[in-house]
Amino acid sequence: MTEITNIALDAMGGDNAPSEMVKGAVDAVRKEPAMKVFLVGQKEVIEKELAKYQFQKEQIEVIPASEVIETAEPPVNAIRRKKDSSIVVGMKMVKAGKADAFVSAGSSGAILVGGQTLVGRIKGVERPPLASLVPTKKGVSLLLDCGANVDARSSHLVQFAKMGSIYMEHVLGVKNPKVGIVNIGAEEEKGNALVKETFPLLKELSEINFTGSVEAREIPHGQVDVVVCEAFSGNIILKLYEGVGAVLISKVKEGLMSSLRSKLGALLIKPALKQTLKAFDASEYGGAPLLGLNGLVVKTHGSAKAKEVSNTLLQCVTFKKQKINEKIRECIQTDAVSAE
Amino acid sequence: MTEITNIALDAMGGDNAPSEMVKGAVDAVRKEPAMKVFLVGQKEVIEKELAKYQFQKEQIEVIPASEVIETAEPPVNAIRRKKDSSIVVGMKMVKAGKADAFVSAGSSGAILVGGQTLVGRIKGVERPPLASLVPTKKGVSLLLDCGANVDARSSHLVQFAKMGSIYMEHVLGVKNPKVGIVNIGAEEEKGNALVKETFPLLKELSEINFTGSVEAREIPHGQVDVVVCEAFSGNIILKLYEGVGAVLISKVKEGLMSSLRSKLGALLIKPALKQTLKAFDASEYGGAPLLGLNGLVVKTHGSAKAKEVSNTLLQCVTFKKQKINEKIRECIQTDAVSAE
Repeated sequence: MTEITNIALDAMGGDNAPSEMVKGAVDAVRKEPAMKVFLVGQKEVIEKELAKYQFQKEQIEVIPASEVIETAEPPVNAIRRKKDSSIVVGMKMVKAGKADAFVSAGSSGAILVGGQTLVGRIKGVERPPLASLVPTKKGVSLLLDCGANVDARSSHLVQFAKMGSIYMEHVLGVKNPKVGIVNIGAEEEKGNALVKETFPLLKELSEINFTGSVEAREIPHGQVDVVVCEAFSGNIILKLYEGVGAVLISKVKEGLMSSLRSKLGALLIKPALKQTLKAFDASEYGGAPLLGLNGLVVKTHGSAKAKEVSNTLLQCVTFKKQKINEKIRECIQTDAVSAE
Repeated sequence: MTEITNIALDAMGGDNAPSEMVKGAVDAVRKEPAMKVFLVGQKEVIEKELAKYQFQKEQIEVIPASEVIETAEPPVNAIRRKKDSSIVVGMKMVKAGKADAFVSAGSSGAILVGGQTLVGRIKGVERPPLASLVPTKKGVSLLLDCGANVDARSSHLVQFAKMGSIYMEHVLGVKNPKVGIVNIGAEEEKGNALVKETFPLLKELSEINFTGSVEAREIPHGQVDVVVCEAFSGNIILKLYEGVGAVLISKVKEGLMSSLRSKLGALLIKPALKQTLKAFDASEYGGAPLLGLNGLVVKTHGSAKAKEVSNTLLQCVTFKKQKINEKIRECIQTDAVSAE
């Protein structure tokens, strides 16, 4: 018998909640029979949305949560005070083992704080990194930490490298993934204090395929599969990716409208261009998991639509099937033992 | 009488030396009669290149320097040992007042080290930042520090903000330029330790138009004119700009070749697309000045061709005319006095 993956989905988080969250859940359960989605949030609004769709009733259940955590709220306070919010209720389901995963497009801060305090870390994991897939010339790379822990230490980065490597190998199916540390030059002696301290530690690890420094310029070329950095740099990389891409594309579109000739050309290239841009759209690749927790917590874009929500839910199934958390636990605990 | 700007140009630095350096010098002096370029490097090869062009003989002079510093050489050693290298000879001309500026496409490390040790800092300047113009939706912004000082302190960032503001106002002609600090969220309480410490110091400054945090996503949209950060982040931003741009454009081109229909379209849009991409090409905007030195030192791309070299030389004229260094000196020293 196939094991069911149970996922709590924050129906209230993100710019397009609840409609796109509900639609994403319906799309996902239609594709994957071995999945159950718990839509967490305000019962009436969710049920009104759900009424629009046909689906296997036993695959979707509404879990009431009356409060909503807003993006602007200070996260620690929000998690502490709004006990009946969709984020707190959903995360507690993971903690209690009622759900394997929690997915939300809501406040990043609240998800990070809640993940650590409500779901809790795998024993031995010092800091759970937020990992995000970024598009490259060759496919995708995993960037971590892209926002969870600023001012990280070298021991954190070493764990990020291990967890990222496990994720790329077992969720994305990249064999012996190449791991690089973000640096401002290719040479070992380059870098800031943190990178200089971390580099030799990564070099020593036998369980990952560490290939050295990766300059930011080489990330979009797909030089490595796992891009390790602390959260300040990682967040810059993730956001700049979006920004440069958006501006360049809007510039190209503007250019195409500049003359009659180019307008005609634009009509002809539209399908090909659309295909290209789709490959470079981060939302194609689902959300960003917070790795190293006792259960899976995934943050999707605040602007996530049904497609991203659905892709993220399907990723949770792979994550469970591949026993990623068990693999992380083993890898981190082996270390703890050998360090004693 | 118009004052002449004297510029020492490293004829031996960069991937396209000496031919493109020499061509760039010739192009620049043809455009600007009030400029003299000293081509520093191996006399015979430079003269052979020069022989290809017509120009006012008194505007270009060859200064012999027999050695060349390679990009891979450890910079401190290279500057110390290769006394007769084009970089050392050219920088000493600035130090001695024989040249107002030194321009090189050679080893970044050697230029940074040489700038500090041979040309020297303006009194009161703690760390000279490398400033680079990056293309945006609206035009260009100045990014600094983009590579000179890793692990910088808040007092350094405050000086970067001031120097960048002077540069944008007086070299680029942006009135009351908006200054932002790179951060991983728009709110004041966000950020790593360095940003949290620097933010209130920038807020206090009356002489700059500080507008708060700037997320990496907003940099390409041109949210601020001066983008302040420490060198590790700045280098990531600069390099990722190049990388995402290059990969996205190659993907678009690949897409255009995917069908007969799109190939026809590609022919029609070619001129418009070329125009667009030109606006997003960093080499259009000349080199990156190292600010806060007793004289101007400018690093161009290692891959710089004549156009970038020529643009950079012309920028040096504006830099001198606008008395940028005097303005920096005043601004930094006013501070030193008021701090006493």
